[in-house]
Amino acid sequence: MEYPQGIHSFGINIGIKDDTPDFALIYSEVVCQAAAVFTRNNYPGAPVIVGREHIRDGKLQAIVINSKNSNVATGAKGVEDSRAICRAIGKSLNIEPGLVLPSSTGVIGVPLPIDKILNACEISQSKLRPGNLEEVAEAIMTTDTRKKISKRMIQRNGKEGMIYGIAKGAGMIEPNMATMLAYIISDFHTEGDLQADLKSVVDDSFNCISIDSDTSTSDTVVVMTNGLSGSLPSDEFRKILLEISTDLSKMIARDGEGATKLIILEIDKARDSLQANKIGKSIINSPLVKTAIYGGDPNWGRLVMAIGKVFDEPIAYDDLEIYFGDLPVKNADQATKTKLSEYLKTNEEIHILCKLGQGSHKKTFYGCDLTEKYVEENAYYTT
Amino acid sequence: MEYPQGIHSFGINIGIKDDTPDFALIYSEVVCQAAAVFTRNNYPGAPVIVGREHIRDGKLQAIVINSKNSNVATGAKGVEDSRAICRAIGKSLNIEPGLVLPSSTGVIGVPLPIDKILNACEISQSKLRPGNLEEVAEAIMTTDTRKKISKRMIQRNGKEGMIYGIAKGAGMIEPNMATMLAYIISDFHTEGDLQADLKSVVDDSFNCISIDSDTSTSDTVVVMTNGLSGSLPSDEFRKILLEISTDLSKMIARDGEGATKLIILEIDKARDSLQANKIGKSIINSPLVKTAIYGGDPNWGRLVMAIGKVFDEPIAYDDLEIYFGDLPVKNADQATKTKLSEYLKTNEEIHILCKLGQGSHKKTFYGCDLTEKYVEENAYYTT
Repeated sequence: MEYPQGIHSFGINIGIKDDTPDFALIYSEVVCQAAAVFTRNNYPGAPVIVGREHIRDGKLQAIVINSKNSNVATGAKGVEDSRAICRAIGKSLNIEPGLVLPSSTGVIGVPLPIDKILNACEISQSKLRPGNLEEVAEAIMTTDTRKKISKRMIQRNGKEGMIYGIAKGAGMIEPNMATMLAYIISDFHTEGDLQADLKSVVDDSFNCISIDSDTSTSDTVVVMTNGLSGSLPSDEFRKILLEISTDLSKMIARDGEGATKLIILEIDKARDSLQANKIGKSIINSPLVKTAIYGGDPNWGRLVMAIGKVFDEPIAYDDLEIYFGDLPVKNADQATKTKLSEYLKTNEEIHILCKLGQGSHKKTFYGCDLTEKYVEENAYYTT
Repeated sequence: MEYPQGIHSFGINIGIKDDTPDFALIYSEVVCQAAAVFTRNNYPGAPVIVGREHIRDGKLQAIVINSKNSNVATGAKGVEDSRAICRAIGKSLNIEPGLVLPSSTGVIGVPLPIDKILNACEISQSKLRPGNLEEVAEAIMTTDTRKKISKRMIQRNGKEGMIYGIAKGAGMIEPNMATMLAYIISDFHTEGDLQADLKSVVDDSFNCISIDSDTSTSDTVVVMTNGLSGSLPSDEFRKILLEISTDLSKMIARDGEGATKLIILEIDKARDSLQANKIGKSIINSPLVKTAIYGGDPNWGRLVMAIGKVFDEPIAYDDLEIYFGDLPVKNADQATKTKLSEYLKTNEEIHILCKLGQGSHKKTFYGCDLTEKYVEENAYYTT
């Protein structure tokens, strides 16, 4: 079994910008339980506005996505476009428009090429293939360099099913809904509260990513379960949902625009989650920390700086322990520095551990290094 | 007249890192009134710790500065080194060590080459030249590409004097004491409260710069007035102090590591200073705004994103006006976009105006574009 039962999808090119895939649909044979979390940016995209309405009753049957244009800052016309897309999909699939969640990602402030999209919606039914979710994972990419998929097979009461997650996102990514788009599909329901499960999982996964401290106007994580394989206890469902969300979060951070390295930062011995968040985000967002890691420079003073610039969370210097991999960095001697530099230069996954000595809270953050290529991509990714 | 009266100085190389100038001294013939503001980073450098003690009585007679090593995260030994430097300068100049303010800038976490520095302190008296402050401006540079000097001649009651400011700083620069080091020297006293004057001026100048959102552990702005040309009314003193501080702030932002453009961002019609600060900093720090300006891309959607990610300050989209130069950017048509792109590409000083429509508060921020060169410099600026 490769896909959740009863799921059909496709991803195709409809010429929104170039000839790469830019339009995708995910459809479930039966109505799904669904939950979503969206960007906290004060100027959410039109699809986010419409998506919030459609998810309100906790039910979805389809997700329609275009890349290359985000339908953000497009005013009332943009919202009407998103509604029209849902109506057209509803008509093609013979379902209520309110069961369709719209998503768009790409440039901000440019009207959607709505005719192209509505034409594609009309023929959607005929394009659907069973499973086929890799096509969706590809069609939703913008500056991503690779597809992001994570899935887990699950056996339960003699039935086999799965949770299948796909995501995209490489820039404009920071706290509070830290991915552009992620879709998690399952043929198992949870026996718990799907929205609560999702919210707690997102706080420990997607919301711990930072690529560039910029918060997108389109961020969306949606989970859709059709229950064709039965239900899972909430604990088990959440555990697997967290595994998949963490996998996808790492893939997004590793594929950060221009990135050469994934940074996995563990904040340990924090007083609480708030303190871990403030300090974790300060480090993972610091351009000087990110460039040092890119350069393979064990410049641990920059980590100290980044911890110290959280003015309202002073940590006594002597309480602080910092490790790259398993090497302590504070006051490293020349031999250790050489090892540290080698660690940074020879690994694609850099583990940093900061023990704050304030309590027992632990939290992990995901980021990437900052390279010339990030600048190039964003200087010339044009309107 | 080129310098404030009664001021002597020098800047020389003593081999801390390479053969560029790295050690400087400013000395006044008479004891000065003095005020300073320092970094809010929770791990201030040793010189900041000692400087805070020495400025407490509002009096200074000399400032001793080394570049290439910041004496930060160097523990009790670092603080003792800073004290020893003040004692050695005091001995050479025959003044109290408490009248000497120490400053260091450069790499973090490496012990000072204290013997070299103490040797230089011993012969300081003999190196002093009248005025000569350009040498200081040069000796305090690290990754700076040019000296930063701003001065104003002042005539008062038949006497001629001046306020003379020098600064350095190009990276690890953000809110709350947004420069590495700035020294402002005058032969006029203020008739007002020097510390209050300085504090209010810094809030409207140095604290409005951001190069990379990282807050240095060494930031220091100190003003020293010897009164040899008399006193100025507080209003007049503050006005000129603000002019000089604004000049220096622009120079620092323009010389941001790798920068090709100065960004002058005016936030207008804000509710208050707090709202202007949050939104101004969000824009001026946004890597996506900074790279768009570098690329000459009029991608105004990124400005909207940066305003919208200040979650606790929602601004109705329709209230928002945004201009590059005098060109409105919201919903720009193709002709305007072409003009906008030309404006961005042909100017070294980019003016952005954001009217929030919330009140009447106005504040200006200074930043720079983000380029491949920033990454290069910081990836390989090594410990």
